[in-house]
Amino acid sequence: MQPRRYAFGRVDEATHPDSMRATLSEFLSTLIFVFAGEGSVLALDKLYPDRALGASRLTAIAVAHAFSLFAAVASSMNVSGGHVNPAVTFGALVGGRVSVLRAIYYWIAQLLGAVVASALLRLATDGFRPVGFAVAAGVGNGNALVMEIVMTFGLVYTVYATAIDPKRGSLGIIAPLAIAFIVGANVLVGGPFEGASMNPARAFGPALVGWRWKNHWIYWLGPFIGAAIAGLIYEFGLIQSEAPVHTHHQPLAPEDY
Amino acid sequence: MQPRRYAFGRVDEATHPDSMRATLSEFLSTLIFVFAGEGSVLALDKLYPDRALGASRLTAIAVAHAFSLFAAVASSMNVSGGHVNPAVTFGALVGGRVSVLRAIYYWIAQLLGAVVASALLRLATDGFRPVGFAVAAGVGNGNALVMEIVMTFGLVYTVYATAIDPKRGSLGIIAPLAIAFIVGANVLVGGPFEGASMNPARAFGPALVGWRWKNHWIYWLGPFIGAAIAGLIYEFGLIQSEAPVHTHHQPLAPEDY
Amino acid sequence: MQPRRYAFGRVDEATHPDSMRATLSEFLSTLIFVFAGEGSVLALDKLYPDRALGASRLTAIAVAHAFSLFAAVASSMNVSGGHVNPAVTFGALVGGRVSVLRAIYYWIAQLLGAVVASALLRLATDGFRPVGFAVAAGVGNGNALVMEIVMTFGLVYTVYATAIDPKRGSLGIIAPLAIAFIVGANVLVGGPFEGASMNPARAFGPALVGWRWKNHWIYWLGPFIGAAIAGLIYEFGLIQSEAPVHTHHQPLAPEDY
Amino acid sequence: MQPRRYAFGRVDEATHPDSMRATLSEFLSTLIFVFAGEGSVLALDKLYPDRALGASRLTAIAVAHAFSLFAAVASSMNVSGGHVNPAVTFGALVGGRVSVLRAIYYWIAQLLGAVVASALLRLATDGFRPVGFAVAAGVGNGNALVMEIVMTFGLVYTVYATAIDPKRGSLGIIAPLAIAFIVGANVLVGGPFEGASMNPARAFGPALVGWRWKNHWIYWLGPFIGAAIAGLIYEFGLIQSEAPVHTHHQPLAPEDY
Repeated sequence: MQPRRYAFGRVDEATHPDSMRATLSEFLSTLIFVFAGEGSVLALDKLYPDRALGASRLTAIAVAHAFSLFAAVASSMNVSGGHVNPAVTFGALVGGRVSVLRAIYYWIAQLLGAVVASALLRLATDGFRPVGFAVAAGVGNGNALVMEIVMTFGLVYTVYATAIDPKRGSLGIIAPLAIAFIVGANVLVGGPFEGASMNPARAFGPALVGWRWKNHWIYWLGPFIGAAIAGLIYEFGLIQSEAPVHTHHQPLAPEDY
Repeated sequence: MQPRRYAFGRVDEATHPDSMRATLSEFLSTLIFVFAGEGSVLALDKLYPDRALGASRLTAIAVAHAFSLFAAVASSMNVSGGHVNPAVTFGALVGGRVSVLRAIYYWIAQLLGAVVASALLRLATDGFRPVGFAVAAGVGNGNALVMEIVMTFGLVYTVYATAIDPKRGSLGIIAPLAIAFIVGANVLVGGPFEGASMNPARAFGPALVGWRWKNHWIYWLGPFIGAAIAGLIYEFGLIQSEAPVHTHHQPLAPEDY
Repeated sequence: MQPRRYAFGRVDEATHPDSMRATLSEFLSTLIFVFAGEGSVLALDKLYPDRALGASRLTAIAVAHAFSLFAAVASSMNVSGGHVNPAVTFGALVGGRVSVLRAIYYWIAQLLGAVVASALLRLATDGFRPVGFAVAAGVGNGNALVMEIVMTFGLVYTVYATAIDPKRGSLGIIAPLAIAFIVGANVLVGGPFEGASMNPARAFGPALVGWRWKNHWIYWLGPFIGAAIAGLIYEFGLIQSEAPVHTHHQPLAPEDY
Repeated sequence: MQPRRYAFGRVDEATHPDSMRATLSEFLSTLIFVFAGEGSVLALDKLYPDRALGASRLTAIAVAHAFSLFAAVASSMNVSGGHVNPAVTFGALVGGRVSVLRAIYYWIAQLLGAVVASALLRLATDGFRPVGFAVAAGVGNGNALVMEIVMTFGLVYTVYATAIDPKRGSLGIIAPLAIAFIVGANVLVGGPFEGASMNPARAFGPALVGWRWKNHWIYWLGPFIGAAIAGLIYEFGLIQSEAPVHTHHQPLAPEDY
């Protein structure tokens, strides 16, 4: 099998068809993911007006996130690199795997996709107000921040190991599944404490459409810190160490990928 | 790995063995999928005579749909393209990926498979009346239609990105899983609102055998609209844009696939 | 990728190392699968002395079956063909894919594996009596038989399409998952009606160790009929039709596989 | 596809970059896995102060373990062999697949990863005391030991069959999924009886941070015995038998892998 090339920063001209396609792909994949993820929360609101969380509701939400993220990442993997998440894009940026310009394109597309998904949910449910994320009673903001940092670290580390690492080989085939499943697992961990976002777009779309901004900064800062740590550790601890002469601080050439 | 060829419109002669095999494959895969999907609903009817929906019942139904659709799509992927759904066939038709004749063959096979599955369920359960889909109390028909449109868009977009896109590469190996999991995720979203079909055959078989036709049109119109939007966006926004000279309006030659 | 060779009847000498390895592989994989499948039922007996079935218990059992069967089939796929089920072996026999001698070897190994697994469960649970399968109240034996036939048809059809079909190509990589997931889905369908075995070894081991034989014949006859139908339809409707000159009634040569 | 090389004992010099990378990879993957596995238990403690176990809680825990282990094994598969478990490393050592030195490195990394994960959980949950594993009321220590032995046998057998066997071929692509799913299935079996660890690091980290040592030895002895049996059976019953001349008692050369 010849090595696969993901679109991580392959081409960085703003008007190049490839950039446009990648941006469109991020927009649509994030739309599909946020529609299912936030939609699964609203579906339980429909069933249970009390909105309490229990094990079976938590599992339903985790499965909805894992399954839809898998489809979203798989659908965009070969076009945009399958980020579907501003924190993943930030982790790739920190590791020198996408250009700043491309990262900005992706961020706009991801946020827009999440907003459109939340608006469509409001339309399809006849007015259910999106919920987004909130820190549970008895949990401090600092605790919630640590939770988001560690969980997003696990996510972005998985992205690096299975989808970015040049030595990933045929493991790249199951990368979208590994990425989706670590998110599903982490929803089962962080859900009862602070909702478990790991994805600023997933938090932003429902926050805007549902207009709920309390502690919203946690769902940006936590994922970005976790993603940066993962990007740096993987890039310098696991990729660089095997080819110490090569430095990634030089401008990226297409053949680096 | 040499490029795989899915049977999307590869041969279009009505009596060609390949067409017959593909049609038989669609019939049997749809039978297996609808038997498990509708059967999981009847199994819960057996356990809970009240027929109320809760989180654990919803998860059981979503898992039954995702797992069986995966097997059904995987089983027919290399023979018929793995549609198992008239809306997927419609999306492929809109994008010029199957001929009209083949689409008609597939539609008949899919509907027939769903009807036979529903009849077999009635036999195996000693007379349980298939349920199919209905719009929940408090949900408007227009809302339900939007829900079906958006969810089927996600499904057919995933089909295009992972199973049809000529640049999908080795992602095609996990295409059946991505297709099945986005359906499973969307069942967890649309289920409490309008049942979450995304598949006219899945709705038609139980409707006919259980003779429940209320709002049945939603489960045809919604999926077909969503599939058409996905087909057009993917075909012209993501495939065409990278080779702008080539047009798909010319008759399809086998090597296009 | 060069074509893979599954051990379907590759070598049929009774004392050949390959036959011994394949038989050992079937024994151990069936042991692992039945330990988890039946064990998940006993685990719920531990939690709920009433032994009633509900949606979340049914899902737990379905997931345990799907996940463990996946590992069991994956573990034996390249050595024995990944049957792990006398009905699958029977379907392969009917389609001419294994020799009678090899089928007998496999059957003995599968039954023995299921018995040892059930005995180990009794030891590990300090005497819990294995449950196996029973027809639920209000369900006729004939209904249960139809249920087993249709569900096993779906299973063996999936085996043929993803693991045996010479044109399966790279789909073979996900064959163990498709095989496992159709079983998981069908547990969610047949579970409340008659337990959903689709596998005579899965039924036999707990029946012997727990000494419960009521309606045991259903769990042999149903799977064998369903498997035979699947083998015949796939072999003559989907494989033969594309190469009508070739007949499988001649003795099988290794290069047929 | 050319044969893949996992890092099973490929290089054994203590200061070699490859050894360092593999050790770092084991540390981080175990951290990610234990954070999600133990975290899912604490998340249910947050929701249910009674801490009783039921089917939906058990399923949530099993899914969290399976999904996160999949990501953890996939992330380290190409770097360290994807052990993420001292018992897997022991099984590989018994079968002659890693050197003693490398095994010691891995064990330290795995235990350290589990301890850091447990400490981070305590921080993120504002002081929840990790739970780890305990033998349930009415279950003897001997029974629990047998349970751990059989379940870990199934796990390490799956590791051998899908990730170590030189004839695994393209099955290696789904190895991380098979390994993760057999653990998920076994959690559904052993959970109500003795917690279902199969992994001394998974048991040790929470035991240390939560300071709960009752019957802790079971979660070391059981997994090590089960792993050793699996390693010996696979190595001598399934690998050796096909090449009887070759012996693994000679020093391992890199090309053996």
